[in-house]
Amino acid sequence: MLKIGQVYSAQKAHRKSVMQAMHGILAQPGQPSDPNDKKGRPSGTDDIGMRSLGPGAPSTEYFPFYAMSLEVGSTNAFATVGKETPASTTAIHAGKHDSSSGLSTYDLAIALQYGQGTGSAQLVKFMSDHVKMVHSPPYRNWKCILSAGTTSAFEIILRMLAKPDDYLLVEKYTYTTVFETGLPLGVKFAQVRTDKDGLMPNDLDDILTNWDETVRGSKKPSLLYTIPTGQNPSGITQPLSRRQEIYRIAQKHNLFIVEDDPYYFIQLGLYKTTSQVTEPPTSVEDYVKTLVPSYLSIDTDGRVLRMDSFSKIIAPGARMGWVTASEQVIERMVRGHEVSVQNPSGFSQIAVFKLLHDSWGHLGFVQWLAHLRGEYTKRRDVLFEACELFLPREICRWVPSTAGFFAWISVDWTKHHKVGLMSSLQVEKEIHSAAIDAGTLVVPGSWFLPDEGKSGMDEVFFRMTYAAASTDDIREAIRRFGAALRRVFHLQSQDSCSAVKSVSN
Amino acid sequence: MLKIGQVYSAQKAHRKSVMQAMHGILAQPGQPSDPNDKKGRPSGTDDIGMRSLGPGAPSTEYFPFYAMSLEVGSTNAFATVGKETPASTTAIHAGKHDSSSGLSTYDLAIALQYGQGTGSAQLVKFMSDHVKMVHSPPYRNWKCILSAGTTSAFEIILRMLAKPDDYLLVEKYTYTTVFETGLPLGVKFAQVRTDKDGLMPNDLDDILTNWDETVRGSKKPSLLYTIPTGQNPSGITQPLSRRQEIYRIAQKHNLFIVEDDPYYFIQLGLYKTTSQVTEPPTSVEDYVKTLVPSYLSIDTDGRVLRMDSFSKIIAPGARMGWVTASEQVIERMVRGHEVSVQNPSGFSQIAVFKLLHDSWGHLGFVQWLAHLRGEYTKRRDVLFEACELFLPREICRWVPSTAGFFAWISVDWTKHHKVGLMSSLQVEKEIHSAAIDAGTLVVPGSWFLPDEGKSGMDEVFFRMTYAAASTDDIREAIRRFGAALRRVFHLQSQDSCSAVKSVSN
Repeated sequence: MLKIGQVYSAQKAHRKSVMQAMHGILAQPGQPSDPNDKKGRPSGTDDIGMRSLGPGAPSTEYFPFYAMSLEVGSTNAFATVGKETPASTTAIHAGKHDSSSGLSTYDLAIALQYGQGTGSAQLVKFMSDHVKMVHSPPYRNWKCILSAGTTSAFEIILRMLAKPDDYLLVEKYTYTTVFETGLPLGVKFAQVRTDKDGLMPNDLDDILTNWDETVRGSKKPSLLYTIPTGQNPSGITQPLSRRQEIYRIAQKHNLFIVEDDPYYFIQLGLYKTTSQVTEPPTSVEDYVKTLVPSYLSIDTDGRVLRMDSFSKIIAPGARMGWVTASEQVIERMVRGHEVSVQNPSGFSQIAVFKLLHDSWGHLGFVQWLAHLRGEYTKRRDVLFEACELFLPREICRWVPSTAGFFAWISVDWTKHHKVGLMSSLQVEKEIHSAAIDAGTLVVPGSWFLPDEGKSGMDEVFFRMTYAAASTDDIREAIRRFGAALRRVFHLQSQDSCSAVKSVSN
Repeated sequence: MLKIGQVYSAQKAHRKSVMQAMHGILAQPGQPSDPNDKKGRPSGTDDIGMRSLGPGAPSTEYFPFYAMSLEVGSTNAFATVGKETPASTTAIHAGKHDSSSGLSTYDLAIALQYGQGTGSAQLVKFMSDHVKMVHSPPYRNWKCILSAGTTSAFEIILRMLAKPDDYLLVEKYTYTTVFETGLPLGVKFAQVRTDKDGLMPNDLDDILTNWDETVRGSKKPSLLYTIPTGQNPSGITQPLSRRQEIYRIAQKHNLFIVEDDPYYFIQLGLYKTTSQVTEPPTSVEDYVKTLVPSYLSIDTDGRVLRMDSFSKIIAPGARMGWVTASEQVIERMVRGHEVSVQNPSGFSQIAVFKLLHDSWGHLGFVQWLAHLRGEYTKRRDVLFEACELFLPREICRWVPSTAGFFAWISVDWTKHHKVGLMSSLQVEKEIHSAAIDAGTLVVPGSWFLPDEGKSGMDEVFFRMTYAAASTDDIREAIRRFGAALRRVFHLQSQDSCSAVKSVSN
């Protein structure tokens, strides 16, 4: 098993909170928290029962919430889910004392009280079962923890595994929050090149094999961050063979792999091959077979820290996700939670628990994920069809994404008439402004580069998402972007009227 | 206005997230997010309307929650609030699209989408109005931010205002989480002595005036952490005059004051003077006059960072609180949120917003707080009555608390028969173990000392809480604790049977 570095590590005198220490004592057999356990009770204390004046938690009597009801999507009517409330919904309910009255294992009194740094045992159990079914991690002592969202989890992981001036290995272009989170912690970024299958194993190996502490000003990295499925911003999904190669390099150089995988269940069909209606899955196992296996599923060493999120598959406002890793890593994350977020919101936990455990179940959850896959596949197709119609082929290239939320359009900036006088960044900026003037918002590729990578930028990209806009808006946005590109590059303008007509519906 | 130190400060290149940057563009007049604003629109764009393929947020269509209903305490029936659901409750409701249908300013589609680092504008507005009514901060540019709980807020504040090896000034005994959170950040602790009115201004002044960098190994502190009301663990509440003295010392030595005030609304009547029934307040203003003014309310300089929490007054599981400080400090906290928790859970935000804004209003909220004050006053009285009955006066001293959750019992350890052979810590441990053997859980005072303060511990204390145990359990716990003390100190055992009888009801 890998060893953990620093900040929250045992070198620092970790102090137990009163809650923790009290919980330890109260959880002993014979205490009121465990009324049915008769074993191991010290003799003579049978009829005593511990009276606690210890942890300063308020009385649950004084939580002014008595019941919560949620109207949620029904498993038999996912297809009708849309902007309006569908005809068929399911009501789920949580009372304050459902647990003591035997109605449920989880209730408002538990959810709204102080909790454990792992998140509630009930939801951790459900997510652990889910992880077992979907990823089946090939080593024994893995564990799950509920995070307060992946940004929070990532920050705690960085504090745990990276010291100031340490390098984090990242895809050449990556999610901007990685930089924003790393910079205040003093983390630097080492870019790994990518091809159509994502991270390039040879480049990763070269970087690590030839790492020069003197040149880089810091020791050889021990931490790789990757978004393996529907990468942000490139949309690329690493095939299994690529993941296996990268994993072998990680073994060779003893890397931790932070697998940030919010789009794992947004694995879409191949572009233009999905017109056939997909039936909802009838078993979790069968559905899992349709997905590219995760790094976690090939992690024999416990070197993967897998971050899952509810943001793209349930709702971002839940501010909740889950992390799966070795029990040693999870134990440190629990310590990290205790001195920051403590645990995700109890409102979020009980809402998601009631939805997944009480209403949908594991199969229903996967049917929901399959429904989302179908929906985002349609949106993806609309965007790339519009690209084919409206973008000038002379200067634009793209590969239709097979997962996630993003299209990544390459623009040949060297075809700009001022190529000798303008940098790639300047051309990118001109296009971005022209697109805004034309009424389309897209994201410049340079935003996804670390500061140290911007000066040498040799390509111009734009990221576009099909996640939220209507199909009409997607088409219109791409039409405008194409027109803006033609203006900037002095290309003949498209007869947009006829083109628009040809795609109506 | 005070200047902010380091980690999240402008020295670090702060990168804007895609969300932030996009929000800036979308919030410009004439964009779809602002359909009614006709002013300032660039000419020629009137009929265009921006199409956004920018931020990678999922479509709200795919949030599987359509409505939330909560059964909450009714303002006219707080007195019946108890373990069971009271006869009269109020139903509050949030739909997915209440905002676009004009039913509310806040709905599930907003709450469950990605949000802003401040927390939602709707709830920030309500809490800001509350702060204005209760504390009326005496300078212009103060602001509120919703925290993901006070532990999270405190960690972000430490990262913002303390560098490794910096000292934090704290009450001699203080909340253990302060140490747990500070230690991994490399923070050290300088203890300030306290008397019956809390922090001693002379001691604070002495420490700062005579600060010796060479001896202490670090520069003079710039950060004071205090729990001014119902201090944890001592239960002490600083009177206004004491707060004013401390504030003047803070001005003299240019300190930030972190005012951690979760028990502000648990200001109890004086012990044994509250048998008269208190009528619910009829105005916020009148109720506020019954409370000791906060540091925020005397903060002319913007040097106070006030941390409020819903944990003790609504529910800890909401994992939400609010921080009030200068706009410069809040702006930095927003940046801190963006790279960690982002914002509190949308489920928590909408539940609390619907409760406070839609159902209770400002007056109803204060009536609830007055109800809690009455309830905790009764519990406090039960505990100290039991102390009078059961604790051996020969070795125990206490001052009944006038706020918060805690009693702080001093035990004269020098009366132990092995006083020459045992340290204060050893006597404390013997008492703690004897109490557990007798079936009572209390918290040893040494747990509330920083590591550097334990060796010189000259007093033995125990912290007890009346917050959660039933009145019968409180009495029984104190009776057992008294018996344990008598055993440890070889005192004559009390005729406990007659004593118990004398307090039965």
